[in-house]
Amino acid sequence: VLTPFSQDLTPASEPKVGHCQWLLDQGADGLAVFGTTGEANSMGCGERMGLLEALIEGGISAGRLMPGTGMCALTDSVRLTRHAVENGCAGVLMLPPFYYKGVSDDGLYASFAEVIERVGDARLRVYLYHIPPMSSVPLSLDLVGRLVRDYPAVVIGLKDSGGDFRNTASLLKEFPELEVFPGSESFLLEGLRHGGAGCITATGNVNPARIRAVIDHWQEAEADDLQEEITRVREVIQSYPMIPALKAIVARRGRDSDWLRVRPPLVALEEAHQSGLFSDLEAIGFSTAGKGSAAAA
Amino acid sequence: VLTPFSQDLTPASEPKVGHCQWLLDQGADGLAVFGTTGEANSMGCGERMGLLEALIEGGISAGRLMPGTGMCALTDSVRLTRHAVENGCAGVLMLPPFYYKGVSDDGLYASFAEVIERVGDARLRVYLYHIPPMSSVPLSLDLVGRLVRDYPAVVIGLKDSGGDFRNTASLLKEFPELEVFPGSESFLLEGLRHGGAGCITATGNVNPARIRAVIDHWQEAEADDLQEEITRVREVIQSYPMIPALKAIVARRGRDSDWLRVRPPLVALEEAHQSGLFSDLEAIGFSTAGKGSAAAA
Repeated sequence: VLTPFSQDLTPASEPKVGHCQWLLDQGADGLAVFGTTGEANSMGCGERMGLLEALIEGGISAGRLMPGTGMCALTDSVRLTRHAVENGCAGVLMLPPFYYKGVSDDGLYASFAEVIERVGDARLRVYLYHIPPMSSVPLSLDLVGRLVRDYPAVVIGLKDSGGDFRNTASLLKEFPELEVFPGSESFLLEGLRHGGAGCITATGNVNPARIRAVIDHWQEAEADDLQEEITRVREVIQSYPMIPALKAIVARRGRDSDWLRVRPPLVALEEAHQSGLFSDLEAIGFSTAGKGSAAAA
Repeated sequence: VLTPFSQDLTPASEPKVGHCQWLLDQGADGLAVFGTTGEANSMGCGERMGLLEALIEGGISAGRLMPGTGMCALTDSVRLTRHAVENGCAGVLMLPPFYYKGVSDDGLYASFAEVIERVGDARLRVYLYHIPPMSSVPLSLDLVGRLVRDYPAVVIGLKDSGGDFRNTASLLKEFPELEVFPGSESFLLEGLRHGGAGCITATGNVNPARIRAVIDHWQEAEADDLQEEITRVREVIQSYPMIPALKAIVARRGRDSDWLRVRPPLVALEEAHQSGLFSDLEAIGFSTAGKGSAAAA
């Protein structure tokens, strides 16, 4: 879920609540708030906890939320994870500590295990976050296996944003008990056919209903066509800088230019690129027009 | 500067104060606390600020300190930088936000500029931290140039831990006013001959006096021999995992096994590797024996 920012770059909770509610109305089962797309790592712990509380107070059920809580610092990961659990979140999406590169599986295992042990709460449900293009710290099959074996009631899922379906397929084969979510709807149907749990995807911010349709109809004749349609939308959007592009679409639909803002090091989409994006999307029949049509997207 | 941890993995300020004092006594001009070697990114903001205050209260002059303050989150970087300035630190060593990869120079410029503007303190002195092997976010010559030009009184230096002396040489040539520190003593003499400011180096934790000797004698006949000697020590140490290896040497010299501890995702050096490291170093005449000899290293 994208994070809107006010003029002073503080997180804007009210439009975020509205956007979360719209996503749920459009068919999202859950919301991975504070992931890569949500610019979570561009916010501090206090900001993240405050925004999570605002979402819940704003009426978004904690049982639908899977906040990102994996930080570089062990103590920060513990703090955010405990906070999420105590606020009743369904689960947490956990990055490995991502500053040190080339670290060993033993070190990564110790990181995850230490967070789980320190939080020490039977309600904790961890979804591992494998996203080497951003973290530069991949989670190996062996590491996942050790965590699943040692914490079977806690480590129950994984988001695979590696972009290589062979890895997703290996995870699904080796760990049938694990809820594996491809990090892109491009792999949604293929994932479901291999036993995947759905997908957790950035473009869900703008195309949730049609992505949902693939999940609802994946065993039916039209499944491949539905998949092709969402893949095409994804391909257009990802030919632009992803997060600013998604924000530009939400801004246009909601007629709210505040949504364009990103925190550094990201840069908002220039107007010329916005127009290009909108017309590229119109060309494949994907509307980015104002509010009325957003609900029917 | 390495960071010692207590049994519960909290930063141990007392041994850190002692180690800082020893480094200054051995000839270090300043101390880059909370850099990569200090496992700073494995600590939260609160822990870092607490430890910095403890160092100053423990008698380490703030005028000798250059804490790392560059975080992924803009607000965290502002908070740490302001804290360092308000505590009288000589400067800060600033990483770019390092979660998002492939970001533009415009985005990185905005990150640094926003921190500088928000801190808004004439006392602020920023040393940029170029360390692509860890951050995966390099600082281009063009970006450095823009920052130096727009904030000439603030952005006064750079630590180049890229491991490629050609980049260091380009920086020295293009920005003669900038204090450029190679991030390894292997490039110390070459750097000084190109106008470099010295070096900021992990192995300074265990070999400060001999590294200092190169700075004191770089224009004399023995300079190359002195350089060769410190390079040889560096090469042995970096054939082991660097941070755990340095901690093992400090632990052995101080007869304090608490120093062996690292925070995940790092892993302490196994005993067999410790013995290997010590004997490899003895073989080139570098003593890692107990306390008495450390002072004479």
